[in-house]
Amino acid sequence: MPQLRKDPISGRWVIIASERSKRPDDFRGNSEPKPEAPAAFCPFCAGNESKTPPEVYSLRTPGTLPDQEGWRVRVVPNKFPALARGGQSERFQKGVYEAMSGLGVHEVVIETPDHGLEVSDLSLAHLQEVIETFQARITSIEAEHQYQYVQVFKNKGREAGASLSHPHSQIVATPIIPKRIKEELYGAERLFKKYQECVFCRIIKQETAARERLIEQNGHFCGLAPFASRFPFEMQVFPFRHSSHFTDMSREEVQDLAAVLKSVLTKLKKVLADPPYNLVLHQTPNPNITGGEWPGLSKDFHWHLEILPVLTRVAGFEYGTGFYINPVPPEAAAEFLSAEKTS
Amino acid sequence: MPQLRKDPISGRWVIIASERSKRPDDFRGNSEPKPEAPAAFCPFCAGNESKTPPEVYSLRTPGTLPDQEGWRVRVVPNKFPALARGGQSERFQKGVYEAMSGLGVHEVVIETPDHGLEVSDLSLAHLQEVIETFQARITSIEAEHQYQYVQVFKNKGREAGASLSHPHSQIVATPIIPKRIKEELYGAERLFKKYQECVFCRIIKQETAARERLIEQNGHFCGLAPFASRFPFEMQVFPFRHSSHFTDMSREEVQDLAAVLKSVLTKLKKVLADPPYNLVLHQTPNPNITGGEWPGLSKDFHWHLEILPVLTRVAGFEYGTGFYINPVPPEAAAEFLSAEKTS
Repeated sequence: MPQLRKDPISGRWVIIASERSKRPDDFRGNSEPKPEAPAAFCPFCAGNESKTPPEVYSLRTPGTLPDQEGWRVRVVPNKFPALARGGQSERFQKGVYEAMSGLGVHEVVIETPDHGLEVSDLSLAHLQEVIETFQARITSIEAEHQYQYVQVFKNKGREAGASLSHPHSQIVATPIIPKRIKEELYGAERLFKKYQECVFCRIIKQETAARERLIEQNGHFCGLAPFASRFPFEMQVFPFRHSSHFTDMSREEVQDLAAVLKSVLTKLKKVLADPPYNLVLHQTPNPNITGGEWPGLSKDFHWHLEILPVLTRVAGFEYGTGFYINPVPPEAAAEFLSAEKTS
Repeated sequence: MPQLRKDPISGRWVIIASERSKRPDDFRGNSEPKPEAPAAFCPFCAGNESKTPPEVYSLRTPGTLPDQEGWRVRVVPNKFPALARGGQSERFQKGVYEAMSGLGVHEVVIETPDHGLEVSDLSLAHLQEVIETFQARITSIEAEHQYQYVQVFKNKGREAGASLSHPHSQIVATPIIPKRIKEELYGAERLFKKYQECVFCRIIKQETAARERLIEQNGHFCGLAPFASRFPFEMQVFPFRHSSHFTDMSREEVQDLAAVLKSVLTKLKKVLADPPYNLVLHQTPNPNITGGEWPGLSKDFHWHLEILPVLTRVAGFEYGTGFYINPVPPEAAAEFLSAEKTS
């Protein structure tokens, strides 16, 4: 089983992933990205359902069977999970160090049976189904009452960490609330006290009024280039309505999210010639088990998506300081992106 | 002038580096690493001194002139600085946002005139001169009383962010204390209160007794694989004597640091076939201007080096959560590295 270990000074947790354990030879000459697996061997393609662990969820044509063709969106456990279900949860203390068993969930959401498409190519109706699949899996995993945080993310392209090019996202549920999320929660709580208002709501108002970093908006959602963007062409997508959790979207809101997401990803693709990117969801911890710990949470925090194009390298200065150097002002990025036609 | 901007929620600062400003076309098809510049055009080679800004420091043969051949170690301002000296320091507030002028220092330490060498190839005597050069530049920059933190780091190899292969390190001085450093300072302060002892001293004692993550040691220094390693084959180098600042080393300690550094970098090179890596120094902020703010600093904090091989990719899960997934337990890494002969 994987092990979670805590750095005593910073409080940062790492996953020592024994299931993926590697020897030095696995890394020799390995810093160059590998070519993605050719489509012929893709375990995520329609017809290759037997190459993945059995599905835990799918949206499929009525009458078709699980782990057979006929699906539109399919969710399977990760074959090489970073964290795994089952087993006893144990905490270890050894001198100054703390560790715990790596219990968790690691699933793959295969977003389409068609290898050649990508998320921005999907129809709005299909993209809504992908979003509803995320909602369904988050709800189901949170109902297990064991995992404090559910992280949805997407790595697109080799440079962004994808080992398969077939469109997919991942879901990892962790037994503790990650440090990065705690920082955001504390920051949001502090700023709510200062402003007597959700700081994200305030940012959304300021940005949609100023418009200099606004990329896209419709009835329920907007896409921004954040004021303190770490990376060139970084984007954030916010719901206008204050809401702390991704599962709390109406059907209408899901439709508008699909539209904004398709638009900003299409713009990104056109402006930057199909760059690799990471997409991550930020939401509040599992409401089933953290209600007590974070009393003001649902009023303080505002869920959002971050889209991080992989165009520059994180290097020594960033690792040393946590500072990022960004050579593209977000105002310039927003200007290029918002000018791009998406149809 | 570059601008420093603060993310209101997390408190993370970024540098919007106007001097390096780029357009979308600069990134088109640009996610693949570029080949390093061939030696013929290397501005860091002996004989090409006129291709860099005028040197600010050098160790050279008596009788040779600045910006001419005859140097062994040479320090020059970065031609495309992330932060720049001069100008007024100003703070801006705009709604929820905070920014300040990007005053700072960005220098390059050219570690040898010989393009074909790397740090682990340098003689111990030469490596001592490189270390003493870092000490001299830190002392000099801190004496300017304007910069709260001086960060020394090295990016080795394209994948680690180096744009030139000629052996060099960088020094960036920032007008504020970076978030990552503050976190370590607060963590160290908290743990000093708990243990009535420096937590790093405690870690060093625990690791040199247990030996399962110990890679190297001599009279004054040791090299470890950290318990909560984020990356495969990550290493930390600590002085045995409690000390919070890099400039506080005796000549004997500099000799031992050179020996441990040469040894661990040689082991890394042999075990992993010359991997790209980042090396970063962690020390206390500028003692000339922060004495008041961090009263217990020199007793709480213990300076150290981090060496981070670039073998895996930081992707969506890491960006979302701050969690890292490491497929090589540090005990296994230490076993491979410590078994490797260095001569």
